[in-house]
Amino acid sequence: MLSKSQIKLITSLKQKKYRQQHGLFVVEGLKTINELLQSSFELFKIYTTEHNKFDANSYNTDKEIVITSSELKRISFLSSPNTALAVFKIPSFKKPENSGLILALDDIGDPGNLGTIIRLCDWFGIKNLICSNQTVDCYNPKVIQATMGSITRVNVNYVDLQEYLKNTNLPIYGAFMEGENIYQKQDLNNGILVMGNEANGISTTIEAFISEKISIPRFGSLQATESLNVATATAILLSEFKRRD
Amino acid sequence: MLSKSQIKLITSLKQKKYRQQHGLFVVEGLKTINELLQSSFELFKIYTTEHNKFDANSYNTDKEIVITSSELKRISFLSSPNTALAVFKIPSFKKPENSGLILALDDIGDPGNLGTIIRLCDWFGIKNLICSNQTVDCYNPKVIQATMGSITRVNVNYVDLQEYLKNTNLPIYGAFMEGENIYQKQDLNNGILVMGNEANGISTTIEAFISEKISIPRFGSLQATESLNVATATAILLSEFKRRD
Repeated sequence: MLSKSQIKLITSLKQKKYRQQHGLFVVEGLKTINELLQSSFELFKIYTTEHNKFDANSYNTDKEIVITSSELKRISFLSSPNTALAVFKIPSFKKPENSGLILALDDIGDPGNLGTIIRLCDWFGIKNLICSNQTVDCYNPKVIQATMGSITRVNVNYVDLQEYLKNTNLPIYGAFMEGENIYQKQDLNNGILVMGNEANGISTTIEAFISEKISIPRFGSLQATESLNVATATAILLSEFKRRD
Repeated sequence: MLSKSQIKLITSLKQKKYRQQHGLFVVEGLKTINELLQSSFELFKIYTTEHNKFDANSYNTDKEIVITSSELKRISFLSSPNTALAVFKIPSFKKPENSGLILALDDIGDPGNLGTIIRLCDWFGIKNLICSNQTVDCYNPKVIQATMGSITRVNVNYVDLQEYLKNTNLPIYGAFMEGENIYQKQDLNNGILVMGNEANGISTTIEAFISEKISIPRFGSLQATESLNVATATAILLSEFKRRD
């Protein structure tokens, strides 16, 4: 049985303000809940329509609350809710390490794009993802869903991107419409790769810090689409950096 | 002023059944409407909150109906409607050409993924996209929105994929978790590249037709995500085929 205050708390977590206030975020989807239970993320509460849905060794079952499907509907953020919803504690951010390739995002706004990019980082072994403070919150439920569990393996940091880039000695690559052809570029070394906002690309203040402008060549006709979606462009660039490692 | 029957017609176009019955589909977003007006797609009606929003040379202005913002809200499929909505006629499918690289989709279910893949085809100059009959409809409003206008430059065909592959002499590549490392593969020639469903990958009936299984290597830890999102995997594979062209 769900109390009114529990319902109020859970549904409030749709908003970043309340996630930050309570230090909690919501996870839906059995696969993703399972991945988080197996990870170092700390469980707050798990709401499920039946007992024993998850590996009892992976969490403290005192934190499990059995609810009805209609109760789940009231707290779920999905139009077709699953059979469980979990609330986890937001971990404290770990300082990014200056090793390997680092990906930095300049104001990515779409939750699906950020989630897909986190999944790409996981696939390509990118341990550190740096987000500008204006980038969508990685604990947004739509981001969590799109990461498919990869949020547990990628260290996401929110920073003043300008300050961060000012204080590094690493080469800084940036994806631009006009840049060096990525396929022909001889040296692609570890450093920081910056990807820009969906509509505006890399902002002029951040552009000033880019040491190497790179670009994915377009093969379509002159009339072809002006740009790629930022997650697919990130996929191609990470693939190019990594295949040459 | 919108009549009840107009509202009923437009809102019915959310469903594939009615899109097929009327041969019409909805486009929202000023940029995408503009791209379709400039293309060979035939306009049925355009509903806008003000005159002269679009280049009057690009369409028959008799087809323009000025409506109020609240009327637009009633017909829009978006939670935050724009200032115009257009209805276009579904063109007759053009037979796919057997030239260049052809992309084939085995039951892609997510509209955002299909839209992103159509945009990728446009970027990489892939003229023919073959979809299994179970793939989500390319005139679904969410697909159209994600294509960002690229739907006008890619020839999308729905076919019995098994029949289609049975009757070709082209090499058939398929993306699998276990396949030849795409980065090390010597010969990547024009042919058909098959991408599988989001959850299940390429089905066993289609797998029987694949002559070359290829794979994107994973660089993350052993615990890393099992798979990439289908649109990002498509991006990486198209990039690999095209950079060697």
